Amino acid sequence: MHGSAHIADIEAAAARLAPYATVTPVLESPALNARAGCRVLLKAELFQRTGSFKFRGAMNFLLQLPAEARARGVVAFSSGNHAQGVAAAASELGVAATIVMPKDAPAAKIAGTKAFGARILFYDRLREDREEIANAIVVQSGATLLRPFDDAAVLAGQGTVGLEFARQAANLGVTLDRVAVPCSGGGLVAGVGLGLRAAGTVAQVFAVEPQDFDGMGRSLRAGQRMAAPGGPMSVADALMAPMPGAIPFAVARHTVAGGLAVSDAELERAVAYAAQVLKLVVEPGGAAGLAALLAGKFGGGPIVGVVLSGGNCDPERLAACCTRWPEP
Amino acid sequence: MHGSAHIADIEAAAARLAPYATVTPVLESPALNARAGCRVLLKAELFQRTGSFKFRGAMNFLLQLPAEARARGVVAFSSGNHAQGVAAAASELGVAATIVMPKDAPAAKIAGTKAFGARILFYDRLREDREEIANAIVVQSGATLLRPFDDAAVLAGQGTVGLEFARQAANLGVTLDRVAVPCSGGGLVAGVGLGLRAAGTVAQVFAVEPQDFDGMGRSLRAGQRMAAPGGPMSVADALMAPMPGAIPFAVARHTVAGGLAVSDAELERAVAYAAQVLKLVVEPGGAAGLAALLAGKFGGGPIVGVVLSGGNCDPERLAACCTRWPEP
Repeated sequence: MHGSAHIADIEAAAARLAPYATVTPVLESPALNARAGCRVLLKAELFQRTGSFKFRGAMNFLLQLPAEARARGVVAFSSGNHAQGVAAAASELGVAATIVMPKDAPAAKIAGTKAFGARILFYDRLREDREEIANAIVVQSGATLLRPFDDAAVLAGQGTVGLEFARQAANLGVTLDRVAVPCSGGGLVAGVGLGLRAAGTVAQVFAVEPQDFDGMGRSLRAGQRMAAPGGPMSVADALMAPMPGAIPFAVARHTVAGGLAVSDAELERAVAYAAQVLKLVVEPGGAAGLAALLAGKFGGGPIVGVVLSGGNCDPERLAACCTRWPEP
Repeated sequence: MHGSAHIADIEAAAARLAPYATVTPVLESPALNARAGCRVLLKAELFQRTGSFKFRGAMNFLLQLPAEARARGVVAFSSGNHAQGVAAAASELGVAATIVMPKDAPAAKIAGTKAFGARILFYDRLREDREEIANAIVVQSGATLLRPFDDAAVLAGQGTVGLEFARQAANLGVTLDRVAVPCSGGGLVAGVGLGLRAAGTVAQVFAVEPQDFDGMGRSLRAGQRMAAPGGPMSVADALMAPMPGAIPFAVARHTVAGGLAVSDAELERAVAYAAQVLKLVVEPGGAAGLAALLAGKFGGGPIVGVVLSGGNCDPERLAACCTRWPEP
């Protein structure tokens, strides 16, 4: 266990991140409101530095790491968004970063990680264990492992998305009733639940996961951590954690109302809708909440929030989704 | 001549449009600021209803059209964005709309126009005269021609982009020094110049046009309306007016500092940058201001504004641009 997270941690993380992270805007689309039949506020976290929320958690972690540990560098394993978040945050603070990435990660994410100056080690997703590779580096070099979600500082950093979202809704004169958040290991959704509460908003928060990778939904229903069945690769490469992290799950039990599962087709359709109607480049995993909304699995406002958590989508994927699901 | 436009018309248009048009957000990207070497504010008009600024001008025109004329319907010719703007505005007010579109207009724009319930007449860009076709409909049906740019009400509607932009900059505590605006017939750029002044901002406004379709730049330099040489189709299908409109030019002489020309490659690169770094779907014409900035043809802040005027980009085009110009 690497700590536990509380409401006060979110406020502290927000203050810590203020000089570094982008306060991402809340967007609204008349076309989407009409389609959903309620008012939909979109938290455009795809505009965050590195193109996803992951920068927040990584930066909040590094800012609390003692100088002596920073000097030994950090190591992370990630299919891409955590990789870019760690690489950019480390670069900003002059910390050396090594990222263990699967060979089949989207080209956009590999290129982004390299551009931030991180060292990349590729592994075979089917035959090698990324945690083993990362741990070997930790043992050899004394680097610190920066976990993608099972860490209180990372979770608190992601939770600032919820704090901001609640305050931005308040500035619009409304309160979020229900919020849909993409979920993999659970750091973002648990953090958003905590962040909304830190702002005094008690919205129903839903973790949206790909079918067969719905560990958080299963765990919340069972009252204990459960693995999802898994299966072939999901189109949402960022949402393939086999099971929620212990720390995120402990928080989510109190802050997340339930889980929703979406199919690959629903995810692709959301990517296509975002590009063609909303004019936003959202990656499949980042579009999970929107996918649930468009599929009629989420809604029932009057005021619903959807976190668009990442936009690092390969253009070929984007074009394929739009061709398959033309709008209008 | 169809009227002339004044500063007061922009305020009036803004009040008229308030119940209908989206107040589009101003976005900022740390990555773009770093690249440009100055602070860049992006007016995200691609989020406007119908995906471009054209809705504003069409709606401002229709709201001033007498009921008797509204009952006879409107006709417009357009490669796509004006078509969608007219179709949506007409549909909102229960006015019948006929749109004369080139056969080779982007599929996304044709689909959007149809979705708003307009009747579409296709013509051959190389062999037929769209104005002739539209005028024949006017004569036969008594419908009103809704010009794409050479009309004071349309220009005043587009000018609300500038009024909003200046006020949003003021809310951020800054004043726009220089603003780049995509230009075809000149309604938007002349209107933005007027709109900025309506808000008390005297920024240097630049009309950004495709090479060989740079009629506004040539006209401003010559002090009189001049045709551009033209040429094969530009990647910016929305910016192919052979020469600025008389009304926009008369306004632009007082509100626009000059013209900048960008190549197809520079436009494609801006589309790719917007998708990959900014996570925005911008069409080539809508990205003209960004193209000038990225090509080093515009800048010199400290505070520069760029109007992203439209996002109706075919996904295949978007993917091709990103493949050709990968970022980072």
